[in-house]
Amino acid sequence: MIDLYTFTTPNGRKASVMLEEVELPYNVHKINITKQEQFTPEYIAINPNSKIPAIVDQDTGITVFESGAILIYLAEKTGKLLPTDQKGRFQVLEWLMFQMGGVGPMFGQLNHFKKFASEKIPYAIERYEKETLRIYGVLDKQLADHEFISGDYSIADVATYPWVAVYEMQGLTLDNHPNLKRWVETVQQRPAVQRGMNVP
Amino acid sequence: MIDLYTFTTPNGRKASVMLEEVELPYNVHKINITKQEQFTPEYIAINPNSKIPAIVDQDTGITVFESGAILIYLAEKTGKLLPTDQKGRFQVLEWLMFQMGGVGPMFGQLNHFKKFASEKIPYAIERYEKETLRIYGVLDKQLADHEFISGDYSIADVATYPWVAVYEMQGLTLDNHPNLKRWVETVQQRPAVQRGMNVP
Ligand SMILES: N[C@@H](CCC(=O)N[C@@H](CS)C(=O)NCC(=O)O)C(=O)O
Ligand SMILES: N[C@@H](CCC(=O)N[C@@H](CS)C(=O)NCC(=O)O)C(=O)O
Repeated sequence: MIDLYTFTTPNGRKASVMLEEVELPYNVHKINITKQEQFTPEYIAINPNSKIPAIVDQDTGITVFESGAILIYLAEKTGKLLPTDQKGRFQVLEWLMFQMGGVGPMFGQLNHFKKFASEKIPYAIERYEKETLRIYGVLDKQLADHEFISGDYSIADVATYPWVAVYEMQGLTLDNHPNLKRWVETVQQRPAVQRGMNVP
Repeated sequence: MIDLYTFTTPNGRKASVMLEEVELPYNVHKINITKQEQFTPEYIAINPNSKIPAIVDQDTGITVFESGAILIYLAEKTGKLLPTDQKGRFQVLEWLMFQMGGVGPMFGQLNHFKKFASEKIPYAIERYEKETLRIYGVLDKQLADHEFISGDYSIADVATYPWVAVYEMQGLTLDNHPNLKRWVETVQQRPAVQRGMNVP
């Protein structure tokens, strides 16, 4: 049994979508980050960085924080969504890192400056909107000749989907990126994705 | 032989420090990002995201972009700096992801708003300075009872060092984070780190 600590955000949904995809049983513990629940001593013992998501695997006693590490852990535990041949594996891992270091942080900054910042700062909104659209372009080009980001459906798709799926909430359109749009629509139809996107 | 595509920045230095640590022979190809060399068709064929670093391993024909994926690749190729037992391995991978998704992007935004932005925007400088200091605090606490970030010296340290080492350039001090300061001074003394930090 896996304990999942999560909330209703894209980084949290990567983990719940993955647990649904690999069909492992899990308990959901909602950490309400709008109520600062990520800063309790109990939660800091699980994730010293005070962010969701994190998992505790009761079978092994292993705790894992950071969504990217959770995805690799669950893929290796179940033998799913991460190729085992070296070339295929690193094609997935590089796009997973692109999600972790690019997509997540940059789309997150755009959210912040568009929706949450106490001041309206055109320079910052423009900076992160431009970078988000550049990243849409990189993904669109990759998806022009790949059905999924790294060929077969993998943890690179699981990591990226929840962040691209919120494009409307970010005030953006996918109309200029038809391959990315086709990919979002395909991934969205997966029953495991639909279930995972409703957690917690 | 490994071909390394890099420049004089923290993300590039992760790869050159690693190549020095694992003692693999490599050729350096300098991609001057201030001259837009990351946008040539030749380089986009290596990294579709137009960022440094990237490697091409002549032994396997495999290309890897994203520093985090490069570190895992080189660690697995040589059997160094990444434990093989499941628990130790994921302690390294979660802190590597923390570097990729937190340290790198956030310290990078602070650099941008402090040094490169065409406007002085106090809100943004304060936002990223606060997050950088919060991250210093997380690392300092971890290093209070660990010699290195995940116990033994690993790719989590290789990834994090080049970003913490530039604290003075970022107008910050480590004086309030004595464990982090001790760690920087220890890592800095490694001959492989000194060689790697001078590439290209
Ligand atoms: N790199 C981390 C990012 C996690 C993250 O930023 N989580 C956000 C919610 S999407 C959070 O917990 N924020 C609470 C806070 O910053 O205090 C990962 O991928 O797991
Ligand atoms: N997540 C990437 C980030 C790489 C990155 O941001 N590289 C910077 C230099 S430190 C770059 O190439 N910038 C050029 C550009 O953005 O056009 C990694 O860790 O490899």
